[in-house]
Amino acid sequence: MRILVIEPVVNGHWTEEDELYFQGLVGPGTEVELVSIARGPRSIETYYDVAYAAPEILRTVRERAVGVDAIVVNCFADPAVDAAREATDKVVVGPAEAAMSLALHLGRKFSVISVLANTASWVEIQALKFGVERRLASAIGIEIPVLELENSPDRTVAAIVAAAQEAIARHGAEVIILGCTGMAALASAVRERLSVPVIEPAAAAVKLAELLVSLGLRHHRGRTYLPPSPDKIRGC
Amino acid sequence: MRILVIEPVVNGHWTEEDELYFQGLVGPGTEVELVSIARGPRSIETYYDVAYAAPEILRTVRERAVGVDAIVVNCFADPAVDAAREATDKVVVGPAEAAMSLALHLGRKFSVISVLANTASWVEIQALKFGVERRLASAIGIEIPVLELENSPDRTVAAIVAAAQEAIARHGAEVIILGCTGMAALASAVRERLSVPVIEPAAAAVKLAELLVSLGLRHHRGRTYLPPSPDKIRGC
Amino acid sequence: MRILVIEPVVNGHWTEEDELYFQGLVGPGTEVELVSIARGPRSIETYYDVAYAAPEILRTVRERAVGVDAIVVNCFADPAVDAAREATDKVVVGPAEAAMSLALHLGRKFSVISVLANTASWVEIQALKFGVERRLASAIGIEIPVLELENSPDRTVAAIVAAAQEAIARHGAEVIILGCTGMAALASAVRERLSVPVIEPAAAAVKLAELLVSLGLRHHRGRTYLPPSPDKIRGC
Amino acid sequence: MRILVIEPVVNGHWTEEDELYFQGLVGPGTEVELVSIARGPRSIETYYDVAYAAPEILRTVRERAVGVDAIVVNCFADPAVDAAREATDKVVVGPAEAAMSLALHLGRKFSVISVLANTASWVEIQALKFGVERRLASAIGIEIPVLELENSPDRTVAAIVAAAQEAIARHGAEVIILGCTGMAALASAVRERLSVPVIEPAAAAVKLAELLVSLGLRHHRGRTYLPPSPDKIRGC
Amino acid sequence: MRILVIEPVVNGHWTEEDELYFQGLVGPGTEVELVSIARGPRSIETYYDVAYAAPEILRTVRERAVGVDAIVVNCFADPAVDAAREATDKVVVGPAEAAMSLALHLGRKFSVISVLANTASWVEIQALKFGVERRLASAIGIEIPVLELENSPDRTVAAIVAAAQEAIARHGAEVIILGCTGMAALASAVRERLSVPVIEPAAAAVKLAELLVSLGLRHHRGRTYLPPSPDKIRGC
Amino acid sequence: MRILVIEPVVNGHWTEEDELYFQGLVGPGTEVELVSIARGPRSIETYYDVAYAAPEILRTVRERAVGVDAIVVNCFADPAVDAAREATDKVVVGPAEAAMSLALHLGRKFSVISVLANTASWVEIQALKFGVERRLASAIGIEIPVLELENSPDRTVAAIVAAAQEAIARHGAEVIILGCTGMAALASAVRERLSVPVIEPAAAAVKLAELLVSLGLRHHRGRTYLPPSPDKIRGC
Repeated sequence: MRILVIEPVVNGHWTEEDELYFQGLVGPGTEVELVSIARGPRSIETYYDVAYAAPEILRTVRERAVGVDAIVVNCFADPAVDAAREATDKVVVGPAEAAMSLALHLGRKFSVISVLANTASWVEIQALKFGVERRLASAIGIEIPVLELENSPDRTVAAIVAAAQEAIARHGAEVIILGCTGMAALASAVRERLSVPVIEPAAAAVKLAELLVSLGLRHHRGRTYLPPSPDKIRGC
Repeated sequence: MRILVIEPVVNGHWTEEDELYFQGLVGPGTEVELVSIARGPRSIETYYDVAYAAPEILRTVRERAVGVDAIVVNCFADPAVDAAREATDKVVVGPAEAAMSLALHLGRKFSVISVLANTASWVEIQALKFGVERRLASAIGIEIPVLELENSPDRTVAAIVAAAQEAIARHGAEVIILGCTGMAALASAVRERLSVPVIEPAAAAVKLAELLVSLGLRHHRGRTYLPPSPDKIRGC
Repeated sequence: MRILVIEPVVNGHWTEEDELYFQGLVGPGTEVELVSIARGPRSIETYYDVAYAAPEILRTVRERAVGVDAIVVNCFADPAVDAAREATDKVVVGPAEAAMSLALHLGRKFSVISVLANTASWVEIQALKFGVERRLASAIGIEIPVLELENSPDRTVAAIVAAAQEAIARHGAEVIILGCTGMAALASAVRERLSVPVIEPAAAAVKLAELLVSLGLRHHRGRTYLPPSPDKIRGC
Repeated sequence: MRILVIEPVVNGHWTEEDELYFQGLVGPGTEVELVSIARGPRSIETYYDVAYAAPEILRTVRERAVGVDAIVVNCFADPAVDAAREATDKVVVGPAEAAMSLALHLGRKFSVISVLANTASWVEIQALKFGVERRLASAIGIEIPVLELENSPDRTVAAIVAAAQEAIARHGAEVIILGCTGMAALASAVRERLSVPVIEPAAAAVKLAELLVSLGLRHHRGRTYLPPSPDKIRGC
Repeated sequence: MRILVIEPVVNGHWTEEDELYFQGLVGPGTEVELVSIARGPRSIETYYDVAYAAPEILRTVRERAVGVDAIVVNCFADPAVDAAREATDKVVVGPAEAAMSLALHLGRKFSVISVLANTASWVEIQALKFGVERRLASAIGIEIPVLELENSPDRTVAAIVAAAQEAIARHGAEVIILGCTGMAALASAVRERLSVPVIEPAAAAVKLAELLVSLGLRHHRGRTYLPPSPDKIRGC
Repeated sequence: MRILVIEPVVNGHWTEEDELYFQGLVGPGTEVELVSIARGPRSIETYYDVAYAAPEILRTVRERAVGVDAIVVNCFADPAVDAAREATDKVVVGPAEAAMSLALHLGRKFSVISVLANTASWVEIQALKFGVERRLASAIGIEIPVLELENSPDRTVAAIVAAAQEAIARHGAEVIILGCTGMAALASAVRERLSVPVIEPAAAAVKLAELLVSLGLRHHRGRTYLPPSPDKIRGC
C-alpha cells in the first residue's frame, strides 16, 4: 500500500524526521510518500492561503494519484480535500476530519487548540460541515502563527497546554485535538502534561487512510463529488 | 457608489445585456462594473472548478477593491467570498448567501433549483454554513450543465419549473431560488409559470451589496476573517 | 414606491427627526409614510404588550395597505408581522428579522442588545423561529425600560456599549444588533465606540422593504400565510 | 382546586356536553369553570385570528385569575399563553404544548392532524419554540375549516384517519395529536380506527394543569415572563 | 388504578415515609405499590450500575405488570425504561423524562442538579435522546454520591442550592430539576431556598403515570418498541 | 497487540471462518481473540435483549481486559460499550459507532440497513447520541430476524440490496452501513451489487480498535465515564 502525503505549503521541506514520523505510523506493508507543492502559501492560516494552495494540491493529485492508494493533504484546514475527492477515486483524507472522527470514540466532547484568532469560527464551521458540531466543546487559538510554532517550542507547548486546560476545566472537553499539523513534533510534550487523550491530526489522517484502504473503502463519486472536467480549466 | 461584479469564469464575456441587467437593478447613484477573470474554469460546477477560480477572483479583488464600495462574486457557489472578506474591508456579497437571506422573509421554506446531481449536497452544506438549513426545503439539480443552460432556453425553463413544482408540492417550498447565476436570463420566464416568489441570485447579491453600503455596514475583520499576508504566497 | 412605517405604540408621536431619518435612508423615488396606532401599549416590552398592539397594527394594515408597496412594523418584537402577511400581499418586514438577515453577511456571530431581562429568551426564540439561532452569540438586556432610554442618552449608550463589549469579548460576537427600534437615535454614538458593525433595526427593515419591492418579491400566501376572514371577527 | 378553561372564540357557547367532558376528566376535588371571550374571532385558524383573540383572553385572565388555580386556553394555537404567564402567577397551560409533552412518552415521533394548509408550518414552529421539533414526524391539514368540522362528523373523522394513516405509514408517526380542540368530540371515533395512541389536546391541557397544581409547580416570572404593566395600555 | 414503583437498587428498603410520600401524591382512587429489586447495584451512578439493574427491573416488570396500570422505574437514569416498554403494554414512565416534560411548561430553560461528575454528559445525552436538549441550560454534579446524600442533609441541601444558583445566575435556568430520586426527601428544603420552580422527579413520574392512565394513553408497540422474545434469553 | 472481540449472544459459537475473517483484517503483529458470553440472549434485536446481554459483557470485560489492548463488542447495538468504558481503560469500540465514523469520510449521507421494524428509531437515536444525525439519510429494517439472516442468504442479500437501493435513490444515501454484525458473511455479495461503498461494522470496529491502540489513544475516564464500584453490585 502506498499513501501520498501532500504538504500544501511551499516551504514544506520534508525532513528525514518527517519521513521517520510518518513511516513509523504505518504497517510494514505500507509506504508513505511525501511531497510538497511548488507554488502557493508558506503556511495556511486563512481562507486566502487555502485559495492559493488548492490548485497546486489538485495538480499534485492529478499527477500522483495513479500510483498510490490514498492521499492525505497535510493541513488541518483540510484544503482541497473535497475537490481532490472529485478528481480521484483513491482514498482522500483530511487531518481535521480524521482527528474529529477519532475523537468521537474517546470522550463526550473534544476541543481544538490551533494557532490564530479565527480558530473558533473556522473549527465550528469544520465541525458543522462534518456533522459533529454537537461534540465540539470549544476551539481556541494560541496566537502564535504557524511559522513561529517552533521558534520557542517550550513556549508553544505551554500555550497549547494552557488553552487545553481551559477547554477541559471550563468547556467540558475530554479530548484535545491539535488544530495544526505543524504541531506534530510537539504532540508528545503536550500529551505528557495533560490527563486527557491528545490527537495529533497528521497521524490520525495517515492511519485512517491506511485503514480505509485496507477495508477496500473509497468515497462515492456521482452525487456530492462529481468527476470534474479538467479541460474546462483555462490558463492554469 | 460603485459595485464591482466579478464573473469568476474565463468565458464570462460580459454582454451589453448583462450591463443593462445589473445597471437596471441599482439606484441612480450607483455604478456597476463588470469584470471577468483571465484564467480559470469556463464554468463552476464542482469544488474542483472553485479551486481554480479562487486565486483569480482574489487577484481581481486585490487589484480592483480600492476603487469600489462593494464586490459581488457572480456565481451561486459563492467562490472565494470568505477569502475576499479577508482580503478587503469593502462589502463582499455572494449570490447564494444573498438569495437565502432574502428568502427568509418570503415564506417558511425555500428550495434551490440548480444544475447537476451535486446540488442537494452542495446547497445543504451552503445552508448549513450560512446557518439557515432549517429553512431549506430541498435542492434539486436539473441535469443540464451550466454551459448548456441557454442551448435550449425553453427546455431549461421547463426543467426548472418542473423541479420547482416538485419542491412546492412535495417538499413544502414556498420560495424558489435559482441556484445558478447563469439562469438569470430565464428568471422571468420561470416566474411567470410559478405561483411562488422566485429569487434570481445575482440580482439579490447586487441589491444587497448596495443596501449594505448605503447603511454603512461592512463585515468585521479580526476574528473569523483575518487580513491575510499576501507576501506569504510564493510563485502565484 | 411608498413604504408605510407603523409605530405600534400609542405615544408614538412621529417627530420631524423621525421623518428625516427614514426619508434619508431610502432612494429618491421612495416615499416613507409614518403612522402610529391609536390604541394599545405605550411601549412594547412583553408578550402582553404585543397582544394589545396587534389588533391595532392589523387595523392600520387593512386601512392603509392599498396605497403602499411595503409595510414595516417599527418594533424589534416584530409584532403582528406574520398576521400582517396574512392580511395583505404587500411586502411586510419586521426589524428583528431584517437586522438578523443582514447580520449573516457581516460576521460569524451576532449579539442583540435590548432593554429588559427577558431579552435572552425572547431573542433566542426569535432567532429560532427565523431559523438563524446558530448564528446568535448572545442577547443581553441593559435593564433600562423603553420609555427611559432617552432619559439619559449618555447612560444608555454606555450601557449598550458595555453589554456589546461583553458580547464581543466573551460570547464571540462580531456583529451587534440594537434590539429596540427606540435606540435608533443612539446608534451612531454606539457605533463610534465599538469596533464591530452595529445594525440599527428600523433602518435595516426600511431598506430591506425597499429592496424587496424593487426586486418584485412578495411573500407567498397559501401555505404558511393564509388570507384571513375579517368577517369572522366579532365586536372588535 | 379550580381550573379555568377559556374558550378563545366568540361563538364558544359552552354546552352541557362540554362541561361534562371537562368535569369528567379531573379528580373529585377539582372544579372546572368554562368561559368564552366576548369579542374576537369565531374560530382561530390564522395568526390574524390569534391577534384578535389575545386581548380578550388576557382580559379574562385579569378578571378571573384571582379565584382559580390554573388556566387553560382552549385552542391548539395556544393563543396568548405566553402573555398570560406574564399576567398571572397561576398555572397556565396551552393544549398544543400539553399534547406535545405527553406525546414524548408514548412513541418516538408524533404527527399532528389539524385543519388547514398552514398546519405544517404552524406546527413546525410550535414544536420548534417548545423545543421538541426532533420528535415531530409531520403535521397535516385536512382542509376542513374549524366551523365545518362538525357539519359532517363522519367525513371529518375519515379525513383525520386518512391523514393519520399517511403520517404513520410514510412519516414514521407512532403517536397522533389532534391539532384542534374543536376535534374533541371526534376523538373517540378516531381512536377506534387507529392502532396508535391519539391525544386529544384539550383533555391533555386540563389534566396537565391539574397535575402541575397538585405538585405545587408554577411557571417562573422574572426572566422569560416579566409581569406586565397594564397601565401602559391605553384605550383598550 | 394501581401504579407499580420499582426501586432499582438492592438496598432500596422502602420505608413507611416512602409509602406516605407516593400515596400522598396520587388521587383517592389510585394505589401505589412499591417494590425493590432483589439483585443488582446498591445505587445507580454509572452505566455499569444501570447494566446490573436492568435485568432485575425487567424481571419485576414481567412478574408484576399484569396486575397494574402503570410502572415507574424510580431512578433518574430511567434504567430499562425503553426495555420495559417493549416488555409490557402498560404505561411506563421514567423520572428524568417525566421531570423534563413538566419543566417545558414552567420556564424557558431548566437545569439538572445531580450527584457526580458525569452529570453533565449523562443529562445532555438524556435530553438529546428525549428531544429537548434546546431547553437544557446546564447539568451539574454536586460530588456527593447517592449513598451519602442523606449523611448530612444540610450539607447536601446547601450543595444543591449552590449549584442551582449558579445554574440560574450563569446558565439562564428558570427551572431546577433534582437529578436523583434519592433527593426526594430534600426537595422541600431546596424549594424554600430558591426562587424558581423545583421539580422532584419521582413525584413527577408517578403523577404523569397517573395522568396517562386516566387519559387511556399507552405507548405504541410495533415500531420503536417491539415485543421481545423472552424465550430467546438463556441462563438468566 | 491483542484485541478481544466479545460476541454478546449465547449461541455465538465462533467458527473457524470467523477467526479467519477477523484475523485477516488486522496487521501481522495483532492477535484477535474471540469469546462469547455464557448467559443472555440468543440474538440482540431489542432493548430487552441488550439488557440481558450487558451484565455478561461486563463480566467478560472484567475477566479479560487485563491481557488485551482493545475490546470490541460485536453487535451493532453497541451493547454495554459505555459501561465497558467505565469498567476498563483499554480501548473499547462498538461496531455502530465505528461504522458511522468511517462513513463520514466516504460520502455526504449514509443509510443503515438492519433487521427489524425498530431500525429507524434505534439508528436515529444511535446517530443522535454519537452526534452525527445530520449525516444519516435513513435506516431501514428488512424484516428478517437475526437468527434467520443466513437461512436463505440469497433472499437476505436481495432484501438488503433492495433496501439500500431505496436509500440511495430516495433518501440520498451515498454510503451503506450494514446494521447487524450478523450480516458480515453477506457483505461481499451486497457490495458487488451496489455502486456505493458498503461498510461491514464488525470489520470497521476491529480495524478502528487496532488504529486507536497503535496511536496510543484511549478514552478519557473521569467525566462521562467514571470508574464503577463493582462491590456495589450485590447478588450478580
